Amino acid sequence: MLKIAIDAMGGDIGPAPIIDGLILALKKDRHFNAILVGKKEELLPLIPQKFDNRITIHDTHDVISMHDHATDALKRKESSAYVAIDLVKQGLADAYVSAGHSGASMSLATLKIGRIKGVSRPAIATLMPTVSGTTLVLDVGANVDCDAKNLLEFGIMGRIYAEDVLGVDNPLVGLLSNGEEESKGNEVTKSAFKLLEKTPNFVGNVEGNDIFNGNVDVVICDGFVGNILLKTAEGVADTIGKIIKDNLRRSLVSITGAVLMRKVFKKLKLKVDYAEYGGAPLIGVKAPVIIAHGKSNSKAIQNAIFQAISAADSNLNIHIEEKLSHIKDH
Amino acid sequence: MLKIAIDAMGGDIGPAPIIDGLILALKKDRHFNAILVGKKEELLPLIPQKFDNRITIHDTHDVISMHDHATDALKRKESSAYVAIDLVKQGLADAYVSAGHSGASMSLATLKIGRIKGVSRPAIATLMPTVSGTTLVLDVGANVDCDAKNLLEFGIMGRIYAEDVLGVDNPLVGLLSNGEEESKGNEVTKSAFKLLEKTPNFVGNVEGNDIFNGNVDVVICDGFVGNILLKTAEGVADTIGKIIKDNLRRSLVSITGAVLMRKVFKKLKLKVDYAEYGGAPLIGVKAPVIIAHGKSNSKAIQNAIFQAISAADSNLNIHIEEKLSHIKDH
Repeated sequence: MLKIAIDAMGGDIGPAPIIDGLILALKKDRHFNAILVGKKEELLPLIPQKFDNRITIHDTHDVISMHDHATDALKRKESSAYVAIDLVKQGLADAYVSAGHSGASMSLATLKIGRIKGVSRPAIATLMPTVSGTTLVLDVGANVDCDAKNLLEFGIMGRIYAEDVLGVDNPLVGLLSNGEEESKGNEVTKSAFKLLEKTPNFVGNVEGNDIFNGNVDVVICDGFVGNILLKTAEGVADTIGKIIKDNLRRSLVSITGAVLMRKVFKKLKLKVDYAEYGGAPLIGVKAPVIIAHGKSNSKAIQNAIFQAISAADSNLNIHIEEKLSHIKDH
Repeated sequence: MLKIAIDAMGGDIGPAPIIDGLILALKKDRHFNAILVGKKEELLPLIPQKFDNRITIHDTHDVISMHDHATDALKRKESSAYVAIDLVKQGLADAYVSAGHSGASMSLATLKIGRIKGVSRPAIATLMPTVSGTTLVLDVGANVDCDAKNLLEFGIMGRIYAEDVLGVDNPLVGLLSNGEEESKGNEVTKSAFKLLEKTPNFVGNVEGNDIFNGNVDVVICDGFVGNILLKTAEGVADTIGKIIKDNLRRSLVSITGAVLMRKVFKKLKLKVDYAEYGGAPLIGVKAPVIIAHGKSNSKAIQNAIFQAISAADSNLNIHIEEKLSHIKDH
């Protein structure tokens, strides 16, 4: 029976959507139990009695808020994030899920659970939608300044994650650059290219639009570029949505059209909705760590829990250690 | 009377849309003439007789193709791009427009026309659409590896371009980063922040989505990040378009809706269509240089020519030299 430790206090809108998401997950999957970490008096009334035997509450009263510094997380030993991570560290839980301060979760996971042997730096990965599926992009924020070896490791970890956790056969890996030709790139990506071309399934440089057209399964970049492309993608999607809405308001004829289009937009939303994918895995630490969006609804939390379970059920970390051991002499 | 030198051969679809765009521009603006550089026997039949007195053809037979290396451009002295740039260098034309090999245009302009005093590196700028206007982003491809001083200069050049050429009052300048806080950024952007905060109208770090929400008028980044965000934005817009189309096909009801929505999509296209903005200016060289998309239609070429004229009519370069002279001791 898997045990998932959940930081129940971290989300922007309090523990309700987190517990609702957990209940959804518990109903669909009978092979795991949960440890909710947080303020018992707030959590207890939200849990339906019939799940009493599958949910344990670990009472703790401190919460790391979005305004706190990630660097303080290690000192906040009574915080829900710290205590939940500590349960994983001690082997009392198999995986960690949080919708709280992502920097705090990352630092705590990296420093307390620890890195897999051979991993210089864990990376945050996220799934971006394509017309027919998804692309795994990493790093999207854990490591702002990266060297070529970091990018090489991201490529190997991303490929193994796509294969072992997402179930992609023979996932193709691309290095994000400013052009497809081998000669393109900045100093760091050009060196990374030379390391990556010795690894399996590397297709070379890819461009920003390749993230969304399904040409590759895994896209590698540093956390600075990854954060910018994520926010850029959100910005474009929001702006297109607003332009459509603005124009709809201005035209009577198109209001009729809009009513009929509602179904289409609903499908579209489903496709670009982060809630479909759950959260972002921190790849490279010794246990599954899933960082969900602060604004996660119950569905997003449910899917974040399923991601944690899929990773815990896989041989991800063994494979990462094995593959990285072959490249340690680079 | 302004004279605009146009590389008539460079576009992906030959000289026809370039000449059509020029004719559109000549009809609307009577205070400039054009020098078309390219194969006379191909160009002559495309020019309506009534524009004979406003168009000069400069006959030359070589064309730098998209497959050629930018580094070879300086040796191709009979190419349309080289000859057109040379006309500007010699003072026989006031500005340069090309839909050809952008790397070739950049190298030729930088090395032959030369940089404005105080400019370490010219930058390519582009206009991105927001709900209510546009944001100028630079650099989007000229300089892959930048230092803090380069980014500082981009900020100053971008602000002056927005003010002098785009007519923005008091343009606000943001530095693209992985978070708004001053502490965010990679090593280079953190140093650039310290230089930029001494310049007027600098609002600090901005994120990818700020490019599209109209919070700032100018966004600064290096050419590697700029290229990736440009392609990412294109990729997201394309994917959303495809998802809408795919879903429309699947539903009879929404086909009716789609017919009614056609008008809305047309407006949307207008808003995100690069043809509206013409081309990308290379800012920091001694004369206006506008690099249009290889696939430019006549409207895009017309607007690229108007951009060149606006820049030539402004005091852009004098202002850039003046403002940069104040920071040269950094």
